[in-house]
Amino acid sequence: MSKERGFFVTFEGGDGVGKSTQIERLAQTLKNRGEDVVVTREPGGSTGAEEIRALLVKGDSARWSAMTELLLVMAARRDHWEKTIEPALKKGAIVLCDRFFDSTMAYQGLAGGLGEAHVTTAQELAIGDVRPDVTFVLTLPDDLGLARTGARDGDETRFEEKGQDFQDRVGAAFLAIAKGNPERCVVIDASDEIEVISTRILGEFDDRRGAHG
Amino acid sequence: MSKERGFFVTFEGGDGVGKSTQIERLAQTLKNRGEDVVVTREPGGSTGAEEIRALLVKGDSARWSAMTELLLVMAARRDHWEKTIEPALKKGAIVLCDRFFDSTMAYQGLAGGLGEAHVTTAQELAIGDVRPDVTFVLTLPDDLGLARTGARDGDETRFEEKGQDFQDRVGAAFLAIAKGNPERCVVIDASDEIEVISTRILGEFDDRRGAHG
Repeated sequence: MSKERGFFVTFEGGDGVGKSTQIERLAQTLKNRGEDVVVTREPGGSTGAEEIRALLVKGDSARWSAMTELLLVMAARRDHWEKTIEPALKKGAIVLCDRFFDSTMAYQGLAGGLGEAHVTTAQELAIGDVRPDVTFVLTLPDDLGLARTGARDGDETRFEEKGQDFQDRVGAAFLAIAKGNPERCVVIDASDEIEVISTRILGEFDDRRGAHG
Repeated sequence: MSKERGFFVTFEGGDGVGKSTQIERLAQTLKNRGEDVVVTREPGGSTGAEEIRALLVKGDSARWSAMTELLLVMAARRDHWEKTIEPALKKGAIVLCDRFFDSTMAYQGLAGGLGEAHVTTAQELAIGDVRPDVTFVLTLPDDLGLARTGARDGDETRFEEKGQDFQDRVGAAFLAIAKGNPERCVVIDASDEIEVISTRILGEFDDRRGAHG
């Protein structure tokens, strides 16, 4: 991201690890400092990408094959990048994004069985060599994570319906990605108290932004 | 397609060249012979792909960038292939498809400016080395083609709104694709009488299916 003036932060992890809460808290802290903060999410984050998201998250869990899902996710990401993230970074904003390409590698590539090569090819096609400045990977014992998602409202349940074994593979995939990208990824124990996690994330953010800024 | 028992035929060309009419006529002739015929189209042709089609063909002509459009088209194609075309070919049907990958190369790759390499990469990712047994490329003087589309109903006008220059580039792209793939593609002068065109298409179909059958 060295060509941009902004700072691009992604939050990754399985369902129910508390990403949304931590993004809200970091965003509020940064806004209180007077920073320009853009909070966004994937799949979605732009008008077109949200329409693609609706196709992905609703309906039967076997509705799309892993490859169709990958291509839809990449279409949404391209739109999200062009319409939301890149313009925000160009005007100097801090972008906090709930899920980005590590989720694709974890859900479709590793846990979903498509394999790393197909996901990498699709990713390069969609947005080239774009990389977040820092990625927080929130991890929990899988059972606790799945238990928390039981309280989720609405009909966006397609991935959760894939079951415990799939969620376990997703958790393992995120840890493998973090270990493979130590310069970019910070693993956060999401079973700590919310305030403890927020403090840790803010500290890592400041360290890394200072190094880039 | 040598692993399949069916026969896969695609119809390509710019808007308004009469593909639908010719597909209907060939389908009726083949059904009268007792053949199992599946008529389908792209983007679309399966439940999921039709939902993706709705995103592609409606709304403002600048709604999606060329790369987003490419990824959506490929997602739709993958679903269409898995759910409609491949199952039909496996049970021995003749599949007549209104647009397939040559349209992607013409609209997004050549006329849309993405370039051949990106389209080829996306295509290989989505459906590997799938190729139609025969492709009929219907060509018309561009002005006549665009005039005919003036009578089209409804709101699926996004590509037509891109204008005459774009339509001219699409027409040139289809001819280039046909010249580059002479073993697969048959160029048809769509300004002939409908019956003359139908007779020519049926003759070519029989020649090529006989060679494969």
